Amino acid sequence: MNIRIKWLRDQLKSMELEGMIVSNPINVRYLTGLEEEGILVIAPKENVFLTDSRYIESVNHKLTIEDEIVAYDVKNMSKYDYEVFFMCANDIGFEEKYVTYEIYKKYLQTYQVNLVETEGMIENHRMVKDETEISYIQKACEITDDTFEFVKNSLRYGMTEKELSFEIEKFMIQHGADGLAFDTIVAFGENTSMPHAVPTNRQLQSGDIIQLDMGARYKGYCSDFSRVIFVDYRKNEYEDSYQFVLEQQQKIVNAFKNGVNLKQVIKDRETDYHLKNFSVMHSFGHGVGMEIHEEPFLSSKMDVHLKENFVIAIEPGVYKAGKFGIRLEDTYQITKDSCIKLGKSGKNDSIISLKR
Amino acid sequence: MNIRIKWLRDQLKSMELEGMIVSNPINVRYLTGLEEEGILVIAPKENVFLTDSRYIESVNHKLTIEDEIVAYDVKNMSKYDYEVFFMCANDIGFEEKYVTYEIYKKYLQTYQVNLVETEGMIENHRMVKDETEISYIQKACEITDDTFEFVKNSLRYGMTEKELSFEIEKFMIQHGADGLAFDTIVAFGENTSMPHAVPTNRQLQSGDIIQLDMGARYKGYCSDFSRVIFVDYRKNEYEDSYQFVLEQQQKIVNAFKNGVNLKQVIKDRETDYHLKNFSVMHSFGHGVGMEIHEEPFLSSKMDVHLKENFVIAIEPGVYKAGKFGIRLEDTYQITKDSCIKLGKSGKNDSIISLKR
Repeated sequence: MNIRIKWLRDQLKSMELEGMIVSNPINVRYLTGLEEEGILVIAPKENVFLTDSRYIESVNHKLTIEDEIVAYDVKNMSKYDYEVFFMCANDIGFEEKYVTYEIYKKYLQTYQVNLVETEGMIENHRMVKDETEISYIQKACEITDDTFEFVKNSLRYGMTEKELSFEIEKFMIQHGADGLAFDTIVAFGENTSMPHAVPTNRQLQSGDIIQLDMGARYKGYCSDFSRVIFVDYRKNEYEDSYQFVLEQQQKIVNAFKNGVNLKQVIKDRETDYHLKNFSVMHSFGHGVGMEIHEEPFLSSKMDVHLKENFVIAIEPGVYKAGKFGIRLEDTYQITKDSCIKLGKSGKNDSIISLKR
Repeated sequence: MNIRIKWLRDQLKSMELEGMIVSNPINVRYLTGLEEEGILVIAPKENVFLTDSRYIESVNHKLTIEDEIVAYDVKNMSKYDYEVFFMCANDIGFEEKYVTYEIYKKYLQTYQVNLVETEGMIENHRMVKDETEISYIQKACEITDDTFEFVKNSLRYGMTEKELSFEIEKFMIQHGADGLAFDTIVAFGENTSMPHAVPTNRQLQSGDIIQLDMGARYKGYCSDFSRVIFVDYRKNEYEDSYQFVLEQQQKIVNAFKNGVNLKQVIKDRETDYHLKNFSVMHSFGHGVGMEIHEEPFLSSKMDVHLKENFVIAIEPGVYKAGKFGIRLEDTYQITKDSCIKLGKSGKNDSIISLKR
């Protein structure tokens, strides 16, 4: 049995649960390596992957005897087959953060057990990355660094946000990414004022601020990265916000290491914002892994102690409605006594002069 | 108030519900036009969009007085503010097919009401498309047709599934699509045996079968389209399955029109499959609209009477494990007395000779 399923079984035992239904596809992939649609049933006597005829062939290709996972095609299963999994069992864990109310009711009927909330147990375990996971995230960061260099050399007057965002995707995929970690944000000028701007046909011009927010996906793992570029010169009105955001990111980095409660660090940042009369428009960051946004979320409401090998994106931003926004973001690894940037891109040279 | 929210309010009244919490972002977009994250609360006295500081600016930009929707930033709301929405109300609808068990419990606490399942009421209403929706789907089909022509002219020996899938995405976006309707499936040769194949580095060679499954997204609406191409010649072993799939699609098209119960039509197709000893690996199709897969699903278990202006993808397929698969798919509009293909691509000329 693989080490992650072993961990899960120990976990369940300590919670006095006799099994678990794992429905979140990210968690299923984390535990089994399988990307195919299906659910993982941790039953007292076996580990079962329930899938359908579309996937059964590729699933059986991937699973080996060492996995100790049996794949079933749900079409061949009877009501009784389901009940047999948890025969004589009472309390079975389920993922209340993923399962819809409708599916919850279906599970109750199908498995005839008491379903117990597991409070994001697997998601919380995923916060600590192993060596392989970190190497994948590092590779995703590397592809993103290369993409940023490419972007700096590709800028030209008149290009649109959409064009640039498309070039970014193409470059990432041609340079080793499985795909994008998320839809790329490219915003020019006044469009930067919206943190979640969608690329438009707005054309690039001199004096513009460019907001990039992009990431690559490599072997299922993500990177997250944001930069601003000032075209030809930096307007005076941007100066104060830019320096502030730079400073805020650095303050978080300086404070983060194994054992630190992120709550207090973020509370201090919020105080800095309030003193400047800036509003906090979004969280200061989040975990990064198989999901682009995962636990822990950097909010003053989250009472989370950082641990070695958490991987976290730190992304403070400042937004002036209708005018502009500035957000900087890098992906970091928490270590015993520091917080290490996984990418290489610096934050100097933010002003880029274009050829006429 | 817009016509869709008016419809929803009438619907709620007929179900003796005093309001509804709409959480599914597709349904929120359908009802309000808003793409921003947030939930729509249909309260007795007002329509409320609950969003956060990241989106409040763009939401307020889009909403007009005619919308009769008030947007709130959740950060500025108290426990009491939430309770006020449904003050004196008892039964409030919610989306049990979308809301997780965790959120369900949160809603109970937050709104202090009895939450009632609405059984996909909005999804069911979305099955009948209006003129504008059909025009968007038609445009998405047009882009997909153009992409298919492009693909036929782009094939060359040695190109990989990944390369072709990337070229498809690029072409779609450069020719008017907002994006892909779903991740493109490109499979060559033996890889076609998996209905949900993910593009690999497998290279194209003479005698290969190519399975394409692709769609464009235009103004939020999807197209869905599958074809097979035989490179240089069609192997004898493909012949029977290919003719069978062609025939199955045509039989469904011939049977579908306003008023027909899709259950019986699909049951007849299943019989054809069993007589041939072919297995039914996936449903025969599905509704297409804001989602690539939506109601109704073409299964012999679905007791659904087709109505005018349903838009449906019909996609029979045959798969031989480890050997090959063949799937054909087009997007159709149900009319009073027929079923009209929305795209223009034919199914002749499936054999394409490549230049050496």
